[in-house]
Amino acid sequence: MSESPSFRVGLLGHGTVGAAFRELLESRADAIEAQVGRRPEISGVLTRSRGDFEDILERSDLIVEVMGGIEPAHDYVMRSLNAGKHVVTANKQLLSQSGEELHAAASANGVQLGFEAAVAGVVPAIRVMRETLAAAHIERVHGIVNGTTNFILSAMARTGADYDDALREAQELGFAEADPTEDVTGKDAAAKMAILARLAFGAPVRLSDVPYEGIERVTADDISYARELGLSLKLIGSAERIDGGISVGVYPAFLYAGHPLASVNGSYNAVTIESPAITEITLSGPGAGGSQTGSAVLGDVIAAMTPPATQMPPVEELAIVSDVESAFYLYVEVADRPGVLAQVAEILGLQGISIRSFVQRGIGDDARLVMVLHPILESKFRAAVEMIERLDFVRSRPRSIHVIEEVFE
Amino acid sequence: MSESPSFRVGLLGHGTVGAAFRELLESRADAIEAQVGRRPEISGVLTRSRGDFEDILERSDLIVEVMGGIEPAHDYVMRSLNAGKHVVTANKQLLSQSGEELHAAASANGVQLGFEAAVAGVVPAIRVMRETLAAAHIERVHGIVNGTTNFILSAMARTGADYDDALREAQELGFAEADPTEDVTGKDAAAKMAILARLAFGAPVRLSDVPYEGIERVTADDISYARELGLSLKLIGSAERIDGGISVGVYPAFLYAGHPLASVNGSYNAVTIESPAITEITLSGPGAGGSQTGSAVLGDVIAAMTPPATQMPPVEELAIVSDVESAFYLYVEVADRPGVLAQVAEILGLQGISIRSFVQRGIGDDARLVMVLHPILESKFRAAVEMIERLDFVRSRPRSIHVIEEVFE
Repeated sequence: MSESPSFRVGLLGHGTVGAAFRELLESRADAIEAQVGRRPEISGVLTRSRGDFEDILERSDLIVEVMGGIEPAHDYVMRSLNAGKHVVTANKQLLSQSGEELHAAASANGVQLGFEAAVAGVVPAIRVMRETLAAAHIERVHGIVNGTTNFILSAMARTGADYDDALREAQELGFAEADPTEDVTGKDAAAKMAILARLAFGAPVRLSDVPYEGIERVTADDISYARELGLSLKLIGSAERIDGGISVGVYPAFLYAGHPLASVNGSYNAVTIESPAITEITLSGPGAGGSQTGSAVLGDVIAAMTPPATQMPPVEELAIVSDVESAFYLYVEVADRPGVLAQVAEILGLQGISIRSFVQRGIGDDARLVMVLHPILESKFRAAVEMIERLDFVRSRPRSIHVIEEVFE
Repeated sequence: MSESPSFRVGLLGHGTVGAAFRELLESRADAIEAQVGRRPEISGVLTRSRGDFEDILERSDLIVEVMGGIEPAHDYVMRSLNAGKHVVTANKQLLSQSGEELHAAASANGVQLGFEAAVAGVVPAIRVMRETLAAAHIERVHGIVNGTTNFILSAMARTGADYDDALREAQELGFAEADPTEDVTGKDAAAKMAILARLAFGAPVRLSDVPYEGIERVTADDISYARELGLSLKLIGSAERIDGGISVGVYPAFLYAGHPLASVNGSYNAVTIESPAITEITLSGPGAGGSQTGSAVLGDVIAAMTPPATQMPPVEELAIVSDVESAFYLYVEVADRPGVLAQVAEILGLQGISIRSFVQRGIGDDARLVMVLHPILESKFRAAVEMIERLDFVRSRPRSIHVIEEVFE
């Protein structure tokens, strides 16, 4: 028998993550007791078929919520916080929809709300960001926060496969679900970026504030042409301060080889935090998996067993800026006649856009202009693309993808 | 005027790091006060020419030591801890030599000893490892913890330059000192690995326990041949559990492209922490620079302003294992006669070593055998190399370099 007082953890949900968390907690109880002076133990488990929430709540110091979905998770989490219990949750939907309400309840009741497992798997993005915050002004966060899409894009790059084939491979290997919609549309990443942006800037950001674009329309051609230009494609979540406001979004983007996220492959997640004082920190690791998520939950439980190191920063309302400067990749199918490139270049020039690199492929009616443009306001780029689309030698809708330039070189 | 109680920071040393830290602290004082409820302020500065240590100590809650060197830093740090003051230090020599004494004094006096800035620049390796510790059993740590050598090796790989030329470039650009000995011999990295290993395994590890090998003998040839085999060269610090003991060392090593450290280039630092529960976490960022190191110091100061989240784990004595399994790269200059490869392969086979990949270059008296071998105990590999060296067709001492295999695929 242990002599330390126990720390009672109520577990809501006992799927893959819940079971892995419970096993990990039991195997690490001795080490945790040695380090923080209290022994964690599971005080009750609620599943669809057994357990009583009120009963578990009463017998717990902390509630772990790994049920997922909005209700009844929302109800349980709010009741736990209002009962003065710490809460650790892996529920990104809940946080990206009701984050302000949850943070306010945690703060009003003087308890901790841990959510490391909701964002980037085993990558301790939340913790590092929280600790970095006071010491440095975070200017920008770039993240690969969805392992499924990173697996698919990596497979397309490695094998030259089409999107459909790469998705099928991901499903066969267990890296994509039977219905991959939430992942491939970018919605899952958008929810995570809302959570990261809330933390980085202390401003309320909801999922509905985050425009997102998925990877369903990415072609093997885009990836192979861009590789010739030294670029690799990722589904990037971006959150940055701009003109006194902030911009948050998710979109496929090409990265130059020098960018710290360019080499993050497979189902891995990674987050780059940029600040003038620190230049940048990049964190990477497996994006998902029961034991990885379980270990992120356990880390938050341990943090709640000890006094909080820092508070959540005060909330600040910041405008959401939607027209942001970016570099772009542009792919135009043309009938190759004299003067084609000149006309395209003239339209770009009228919008103040200059070309960073360029390749032309194919001949005659099957030619393609592929180029990377220097950074420009997105509205100007879209206006130019619309004009290019109307040129009579352009054979289909031009395709465009964001390009993220090197942080350092 | 602020109403929060102030937190008084005494600063020992006012060079690049000290000045950057002071500037950062002053610019972040408002944000820190908002987050932790106390306002940090500099209570005194000690330089070679001004300030009195006793006086500063008395007027401080925490002492920042950024003087470097062993004495008087050691004396000041011990006196600060024994006076019940928190200490934050960036002094890797001091920690790798007298770590146990310092940790014991901090523990006996119930104060914090912060040393994030001593290891990997802005990369929060210490903090993440400390927080990971209770939740996961760390099996292995691999690090690129010296920016100078990583810059030199990256330059050699990029341009094909020789070591001497790359060193000169690094010196001209300020990435290497006029006397680069501590860096290029691996001694600086060894001190940092002693600190990381101490933390990862809770076992006393001193600089004198860490064998190190530098990059001075690496040739442009090695790098270019290995690239054909898909390998890139880094100066790797390694600390791992083996057979109930631990092994810690620093050596140049080739990494396969899939390894998370393979793409860390330039003067960057990075650390990979491996554990069964988390698979691995990799952290990377700029390795040095006044403001980066200053921000790591400030992070430790903020942590000390709040209750400690976790204690240092209890000390455990673990045997230092010196004969460890590793894959190796082997480069042999030979006079190319029939049977040359067969004789080399026979010697390898006798030691139980098999060849993973192989290239042969040159002809006649100027031939080279370049190969990567599967993992084998280092003692067996060295025995084989000694036998190969004695073969009459071998024209010079064979060169060998560690190879680190992919963590994931």
